[in-house]
Amino acid sequence: MSIKVAVVGAAGYSGEELLRLLARHNEAEVKVITSRKYAGQPVSDVFPRFWGSDLKFTAPDVKTIAAECDAAFLALPHGLATEYAVPLLKAGVKVIDISADFRLRSTSKYQEYYGEAHPAPELLKLAVYGMPERYREQIKNADLIACPGCYPTSSILPAAPLLKGGLVSTEGIVVASMSGVTGAGRKVDLPYIFPECNESVKAYKPYGHRHLPEIEQEMAAAAGVDHEIAINFIPHLVPVNRGINSTILMNAAAGCSMEKIASAYEKAYGKEKFVRILPAGKCSDTKYVTMSNCCEIGYNYDPRTNKVILTSVIDNLTKGASGQALQCLNIMFGLEETSGLL
Amino acid sequence: MSIKVAVVGAAGYSGEELLRLLARHNEAEVKVITSRKYAGQPVSDVFPRFWGSDLKFTAPDVKTIAAECDAAFLALPHGLATEYAVPLLKAGVKVIDISADFRLRSTSKYQEYYGEAHPAPELLKLAVYGMPERYREQIKNADLIACPGCYPTSSILPAAPLLKGGLVSTEGIVVASMSGVTGAGRKVDLPYIFPECNESVKAYKPYGHRHLPEIEQEMAAAAGVDHEIAINFIPHLVPVNRGINSTILMNAAAGCSMEKIASAYEKAYGKEKFVRILPAGKCSDTKYVTMSNCCEIGYNYDPRTNKVILTSVIDNLTKGASGQALQCLNIMFGLEETSGLL
Amino acid sequence: MSIKVAVVGAAGYSGEELLRLLARHNEAEVKVITSRKYAGQPVSDVFPRFWGSDLKFTAPDVKTIAAECDAAFLALPHGLATEYAVPLLKAGVKVIDISADFRLRSTSKYQEYYGEAHPAPELLKLAVYGMPERYREQIKNADLIACPGCYPTSSILPAAPLLKGGLVSTEGIVVASMSGVTGAGRKVDLPYIFPECNESVKAYKPYGHRHLPEIEQEMAAAAGVDHEIAINFIPHLVPVNRGINSTILMNAAAGCSMEKIASAYEKAYGKEKFVRILPAGKCSDTKYVTMSNCCEIGYNYDPRTNKVILTSVIDNLTKGASGQALQCLNIMFGLEETSGLL
Amino acid sequence: MSIKVAVVGAAGYSGEELLRLLARHNEAEVKVITSRKYAGQPVSDVFPRFWGSDLKFTAPDVKTIAAECDAAFLALPHGLATEYAVPLLKAGVKVIDISADFRLRSTSKYQEYYGEAHPAPELLKLAVYGMPERYREQIKNADLIACPGCYPTSSILPAAPLLKGGLVSTEGIVVASMSGVTGAGRKVDLPYIFPECNESVKAYKPYGHRHLPEIEQEMAAAAGVDHEIAINFIPHLVPVNRGINSTILMNAAAGCSMEKIASAYEKAYGKEKFVRILPAGKCSDTKYVTMSNCCEIGYNYDPRTNKVILTSVIDNLTKGASGQALQCLNIMFGLEETSGLL
Repeated sequence: MSIKVAVVGAAGYSGEELLRLLARHNEAEVKVITSRKYAGQPVSDVFPRFWGSDLKFTAPDVKTIAAECDAAFLALPHGLATEYAVPLLKAGVKVIDISADFRLRSTSKYQEYYGEAHPAPELLKLAVYGMPERYREQIKNADLIACPGCYPTSSILPAAPLLKGGLVSTEGIVVASMSGVTGAGRKVDLPYIFPECNESVKAYKPYGHRHLPEIEQEMAAAAGVDHEIAINFIPHLVPVNRGINSTILMNAAAGCSMEKIASAYEKAYGKEKFVRILPAGKCSDTKYVTMSNCCEIGYNYDPRTNKVILTSVIDNLTKGASGQALQCLNIMFGLEETSGLL
Repeated sequence: MSIKVAVVGAAGYSGEELLRLLARHNEAEVKVITSRKYAGQPVSDVFPRFWGSDLKFTAPDVKTIAAECDAAFLALPHGLATEYAVPLLKAGVKVIDISADFRLRSTSKYQEYYGEAHPAPELLKLAVYGMPERYREQIKNADLIACPGCYPTSSILPAAPLLKGGLVSTEGIVVASMSGVTGAGRKVDLPYIFPECNESVKAYKPYGHRHLPEIEQEMAAAAGVDHEIAINFIPHLVPVNRGINSTILMNAAAGCSMEKIASAYEKAYGKEKFVRILPAGKCSDTKYVTMSNCCEIGYNYDPRTNKVILTSVIDNLTKGASGQALQCLNIMFGLEETSGLL
Repeated sequence: MSIKVAVVGAAGYSGEELLRLLARHNEAEVKVITSRKYAGQPVSDVFPRFWGSDLKFTAPDVKTIAAECDAAFLALPHGLATEYAVPLLKAGVKVIDISADFRLRSTSKYQEYYGEAHPAPELLKLAVYGMPERYREQIKNADLIACPGCYPTSSILPAAPLLKGGLVSTEGIVVASMSGVTGAGRKVDLPYIFPECNESVKAYKPYGHRHLPEIEQEMAAAAGVDHEIAINFIPHLVPVNRGINSTILMNAAAGCSMEKIASAYEKAYGKEKFVRILPAGKCSDTKYVTMSNCCEIGYNYDPRTNKVILTSVIDNLTKGASGQALQCLNIMFGLEETSGLL
Repeated sequence: MSIKVAVVGAAGYSGEELLRLLARHNEAEVKVITSRKYAGQPVSDVFPRFWGSDLKFTAPDVKTIAAECDAAFLALPHGLATEYAVPLLKAGVKVIDISADFRLRSTSKYQEYYGEAHPAPELLKLAVYGMPERYREQIKNADLIACPGCYPTSSILPAAPLLKGGLVSTEGIVVASMSGVTGAGRKVDLPYIFPECNESVKAYKPYGHRHLPEIEQEMAAAAGVDHEIAINFIPHLVPVNRGINSTILMNAAAGCSMEKIASAYEKAYGKEKFVRILPAGKCSDTKYVTMSNCCEIGYNYDPRTNKVILTSVIDNLTKGASGQALQCLNIMFGLEETSGLL
């Protein structure tokens, strides 16, 4: 007996990735995929990779989803996700939201970074941050999952165990990230056409990016501090399709050592299937995680500046979005956590 | 009457770029180009782009160069450059060294980062750091130019005016750089073959890179401090042919403001032909400087963390190597500084 | 005294390339650049590469151009070009059209391939096909130049001398071409965003492409036949910014030999500055012609199939569009043909 | 109970791809992986993607393989493969050779194209050409599989049904193919470093490529002719990691029509899981087959030249090498043909 799922807003890259992964999943079955734009068309017309599939896009309809599905993935723009989450939850459908709507616990932060009041603040208490390596127990019983953003996933996973262990300070954290172009979604806009992106490297939004408060929230939580922390997060666009590298600098606390870092990681991730800690002194490479749900983490210590320097890579569409969402589904329904993800 | 030049070690990417630029230069003429490996072959066999040229590679020979040339560019591995610089200078040939041999004023730093004693410490006093925007007057009368490294060029140019103006602190500087693959030279090694680099983003040498002491030396000089400073410099390899982006974080000093930054840049670079300051709040893009000798600089201020955030891009082969070298030649011989570079 | 020119429709890649080339031209001066979309904006806002330039986009206006310019480049969509060409010619401005409007001598072919009647058939007699290596004398006195398409340039240049010399048949010609993405213009459309083009190779329009009748027209002209010929032309899109490779198969005529091919090329192009014939048996590489006005041609003969196999590469924006247009301007106004192009 | 396999010569891209696929295979188990160069090292040191795997490279040893394995994949250079195939077959191990050693039935063709006498001509009768869509029955009982080359796979699959059905002529076939750089193997050589391949498109070996006689052999077999046929096959190198596009022109026979082509394909591939026929008039795109074992085929007919024009794409490492090899293993051992391949 398999879990029946809907993918709402399936015509973007996250939706495509979900379909790719679900096609290999033995215990989950896609019953509904929706797209306003492509309603009525076979999925294989939009994504030829799925030829042979019988799936057709339909216009999104809560009743149909509620009638046919146990869970719904929302791969929608922020704001719009809430419009579906509310009635779906009411109808008893578990919701795994890949948008940004339920990631921030603070409605004022949401207001500040998204420029409008949160559309359903009452749901925020319900939502569990969908990062299994940190919130596995809560995910098991959750009805509403807020899947982490891609940049946050790539930076929280490496930073959290060191913050939790008191090995690094919450002051002066710098995250410099480089993302492939699918990170911008399947967006048709001049800056994203091939000749503009190819042979180009650039920073953008060097402060105030919408993923910043999410990173700060989870780093503070990991450190166990109850005040707000302020970090620098600087995203860059680089000409690859998939992959994020985050390079993270943190001030080493007294008593920090490479051995203690290694042991904090071993404790946090020693049994994890999707987090790989590199040998001390090595740097990660996006090449080794694309098309996989893994996060690969390298750690270094620079004695001259007393900085811990972490490098961390993920596939922005897999561990950074749809793969992690599927990992949550597996946990919520008591399936093998790696199902569809190996 | 034109300046006669030699390009010693012309079979790499810096050599090729020098030849490309010199071909358009009206007052400089290539008389000798050398390559042990390709001695005897027409340059157009090695670089088909130069078909029509009569130039042939010869084995490097100091006497010939001294007899025929006013100046010699050395595009050689570090260490080897000195072997040619010493006799060429003795023979009265001006030397513009693109290697790392004369960049560091401290022989102990050289020893520390290059793993051997400096081969000709007596030349270090003679050498002028070949960054015209900072050392133009000294370059005019120099016999030996130490051309800056590519990463240092991309980070010193944006940082220097702010350090000099006391607008930022020398403490806690972070430079995160991303380089195209020609930055590794024309090196035939597994990590540089196409399938390994393409669709890959990675940090390497996250501390202790050989360009680090050079950046620190020049940032300290710009700030006017007489003690050593320690910064974090983290290079990354990204899949483009040409281009470096450096993103620089510095702690704002008391009284720093966007207006003061703008005015420090205006003062330093207002009349420069090869440095472009973007409007406040914009980020630079390597796309706009490749195949040019320009450095494009963007500046931002993050009030939450009190950081000045600079982005800076160059073409690693042009402003980061051969273009800047040619700019120095122009200055040394009293030619129009932009000759061959527009 | 310099030639004053207008660039009409300068906001696309051909327009940008023209501006790049004209900036280095000592005897031509850009007086007017137009763009409906960007009217009023400095060119350096749209193309940051041109910072320092005083040029501003204006709305296209025939009177202004006629008052200030000797010649106008039209970098406009087909159809629209004619709307400007007619009054400009009437006002005595020489017109160099980069669009497709005047390339085909046959109005019925125009109708067939462009789906509408030719908007100004009377101008077709006036128009000279702007390929200097074949029509230099006519270009000298022309008022209206029809610049060749990019694919046609890459295939006519290698094929023409062999057709003219009777070394190959007009029957059974196959042209398989691969183009970089700037060949599609600065078009904002889903198939051209980075993630769709990168890591993708595909044919499109495998027969009936709009460049087909142009190639056939000029190949027939080169062969001196007065009937229509039919060839196969198959374009492909590959993930590079600039560059076209055309691989051409032709049936060898009786008596054809590698020596005769070499000598036909020597006769046709021995004195040309922008056509390079490779040694027999070599294949061309787009890498060696990007950012240059050159066409590089390789030739082979396969005795088993009796085919002459040519490979030919150009930069689609330079020799395939704006460079060749500028070459025509130089010829029309008696300037050095290579001005601005080396 | 699972099939035990060896991968001999696993340190190249074909070996890596085999390991990637076998990791997901439920009924096959890798017992031995060999590499002279990396003997003793964990596979995850060479291919970090496989962290978590216990596999270690060993020096190749026939006895060990014979003792532990039911089948051996040979991912070795041609010539060397035979050295292992002979004793392995003798020891009762089924051999699936990814090299070129057993693809050509004619020893004289082997001599002609590989420059030496075939090392084990007696095995050629034994060898079955490992293209399941054409030789499934023979593969079932084979002891020795000669896996097709990547270019041949991409051109034989689309051409065979039309040749078999008499819809096209064996005369005048042209195959123009474009391959990603992994097609050259994990070769460390100047032409394959990133800056040489990136932003480059070029033909190479425009006649006489080693895959040519293989394509001719199988096209003749499909057509049922007993004489040699001669085609033109022209490979090109394009800057993608994975993927081959082959564009094929064939003369339509009398009575050929789009409907007959459709029905020939339906008959040949209607039940195949790894061959997708596009709707009439569409062109294939490598993007939709990378990382999959599929071949996607488009067909067109140009009435002016009476040519059938096919486009066909595969992933050169999957359907073009290791995926097809695994498909053969599945067939040989009676497993689900798609195991490990979806």
